[in-house]
Amino acid sequence: MKSLLKLACVSLLTIPMTLSAQTEEAYPAGTVPNEHNVAGADYPRIGADKRVHFKVHAPDAKKVEISFRGEMTKGDDGNWTLVSKEPEVEGFHYYQVIIDGVATADPNGKPFFGMGKWVSGIEIPEGEAGDYYAVKDVPHGNVSKSKYYSDVRKEWRDCVVYTPAEYDKNPDKKYPVLYLQHGMGENESSWANQGKMNLIMDNLIAEGKAKPMIVVMDNGNIEVFKPLPGESMADAHKRFGGQFPDILINDIIPHIEKNYRTLTDRDNRAMAGLSWGGLLTFNTTLNNLDKFSHIGAFSGMGHIDLNNLDTAYNGAFKDPKTFNDQVHTFFMGIGSEEGPERVKNLSDGLKAAGINNVYYESPGTAHEFLTWRRCLKEFAPMLFNNN
Amino acid sequence: MKSLLKLACVSLLTIPMTLSAQTEEAYPAGTVPNEHNVAGADYPRIGADKRVHFKVHAPDAKKVEISFRGEMTKGDDGNWTLVSKEPEVEGFHYYQVIIDGVATADPNGKPFFGMGKWVSGIEIPEGEAGDYYAVKDVPHGNVSKSKYYSDVRKEWRDCVVYTPAEYDKNPDKKYPVLYLQHGMGENESSWANQGKMNLIMDNLIAEGKAKPMIVVMDNGNIEVFKPLPGESMADAHKRFGGQFPDILINDIIPHIEKNYRTLTDRDNRAMAGLSWGGLLTFNTTLNNLDKFSHIGAFSGMGHIDLNNLDTAYNGAFKDPKTFNDQVHTFFMGIGSEEGPERVKNLSDGLKAAGINNVYYESPGTAHEFLTWRRCLKEFAPMLFNNN
Repeated sequence: MKSLLKLACVSLLTIPMTLSAQTEEAYPAGTVPNEHNVAGADYPRIGADKRVHFKVHAPDAKKVEISFRGEMTKGDDGNWTLVSKEPEVEGFHYYQVIIDGVATADPNGKPFFGMGKWVSGIEIPEGEAGDYYAVKDVPHGNVSKSKYYSDVRKEWRDCVVYTPAEYDKNPDKKYPVLYLQHGMGENESSWANQGKMNLIMDNLIAEGKAKPMIVVMDNGNIEVFKPLPGESMADAHKRFGGQFPDILINDIIPHIEKNYRTLTDRDNRAMAGLSWGGLLTFNTTLNNLDKFSHIGAFSGMGHIDLNNLDTAYNGAFKDPKTFNDQVHTFFMGIGSEEGPERVKNLSDGLKAAGINNVYYESPGTAHEFLTWRRCLKEFAPMLFNNN
Repeated sequence: MKSLLKLACVSLLTIPMTLSAQTEEAYPAGTVPNEHNVAGADYPRIGADKRVHFKVHAPDAKKVEISFRGEMTKGDDGNWTLVSKEPEVEGFHYYQVIIDGVATADPNGKPFFGMGKWVSGIEIPEGEAGDYYAVKDVPHGNVSKSKYYSDVRKEWRDCVVYTPAEYDKNPDKKYPVLYLQHGMGENESSWANQGKMNLIMDNLIAEGKAKPMIVVMDNGNIEVFKPLPGESMADAHKRFGGQFPDILINDIIPHIEKNYRTLTDRDNRAMAGLSWGGLLTFNTTLNNLDKFSHIGAFSGMGHIDLNNLDTAYNGAFKDPKTFNDQVHTFFMGIGSEEGPERVKNLSDGLKAAGINNVYYESPGTAHEFLTWRRCLKEFAPMLFNNN
């Protein structure tokens, strides 16, 4: 590795200001730039062995780190380098460059909103297994920002709306809607950016596996996530996003149904969310079963006490037959590496109590976007088949 | 200033982990958070006097700077601060936080693509003068990402498309199209993010000042902007983006006209660009007058030799009457503080030669987005009135 870097430096000195084909051999063998790098940025690079190669030019820094990965090593040329010790898990991962203790976003990488701020991300290609979120030669839907006024919040807000490729070709057709929520510290941009939801939907729809549908994403971070003086973290969590069900039902859904060609009955309305968005999904849908008939929770959901099922969510589960008639999809997904037992137990317990539901376990993945991309791929085909 | 900061620190120590109303008094008087800060981020702050207050927590750094503004001062609490020496010019400005020599993006601020990377930005409110780009209670258009395959480049690309608020309400109506280009080092996201083009269009259309139109923005950075070995900067400029007219005409326009309800005759097609995008606009439109009838160049345009007007752009100006009949709008805008003489002379010279054109000078602004927001506000109402 070090001799390769030295070679790179010599090449760079003799061929100033260029990164043309002549110097490409100087990159670590088998590596390619991270797909989120801006044009011309050569690092981070992803190895064929799924290790990530980071490089930061910081001759005057005392210490440079990559978040979650550790300290970088300084070279004589002022470049700091770090290579993942182990092959990284496939899919999307956040990173920050930490310069002398200050965590920063990498200006050479596409920004992603996660952990409550704008951070950087790498993508470890999965190969064929990732085919379902690859950019393919299929009709592509649009991802748009749509502005609406929230009466609940008394402010203008943006939601992100996926319309399927055929939407503008069928001016008389109305579409079912999936409301899809991000996790804590993310926002309305995260499902399309980190989650590649538009590509997943494009591919599923093109293959006839999912019905063409509109997908709406909004920012559930209604309150700034900081506990008030004396407030416990648990109470802060409850407060954080506590307004979201109201906003969804009173502001977002009316905005979407007014401005898009939507099917507006409960059979054609679904909600799902990842992690904390799964909790918001349970809190919204199970308390409003007159409005939703498809429910998905990916790696996160509301607590349901199986021993007191009758009282959970205002009695939603009291009569299994009524629940099963009403709820056409009740999906709980989780990664095999993030402690799936609690969710599996919940699913099994609900089944034992006569509540139909689908349990999905993503093999080999943890609390990360690869789990949620897979959940969406499993969940979306189940929707709106009742018509 | 220093005593205010000290007060802030004391307050923060006594009320841990909160930024509630109780501590707000500790902020410099008359300042509010920059509009692009993420929720909960208190700095940068904009003063009523239009000075910007920066603050970065970096106890272990030796030197912290804000790009274009200079070195910050370290406090005993590990916070580095800087206040603009002079009131800043109204409108949008880039910044980077430079930690021990490494220029970084601020994770607490919305990212903007400029200078070839993802950087941070501040907005100095203009007050009433900025009313034309304020979020108002008017119908709002959508800004969407639309994917297309470029035969010229052999790659999938994204363009950004503004559709006016009424677009989805009029499924039989077709719309004229403005192709609108960013400046060097920016990309397809810049007009909507830095330029607030969607708000400008929403307001103009709502007031009946501009016709409802589709606006399409794409990335003109076709080649990475690095001179090849031995290549001059001037030649690199020529090469950089040299493919864009081809891509626009052969890939983007067909994609838009296939997927959106557009009027496809030359009377209903306009192109404009800022800075280097103005050069691309001249190069595209003046060589393809069969396809464009409205032309706008904001703070940048192709070189035209007034002494050899007949040969410029393949003879586009040879017959003034033909040109004037064909080109319904020929607009050149520039800021009064960026050396407007060259553009004024070009406009005057063309007028003297019988070539109709409009010269607009934005008072008090330089080579910056406020100039270009104003140019768009002046230019858009001139479009598509020929029908």
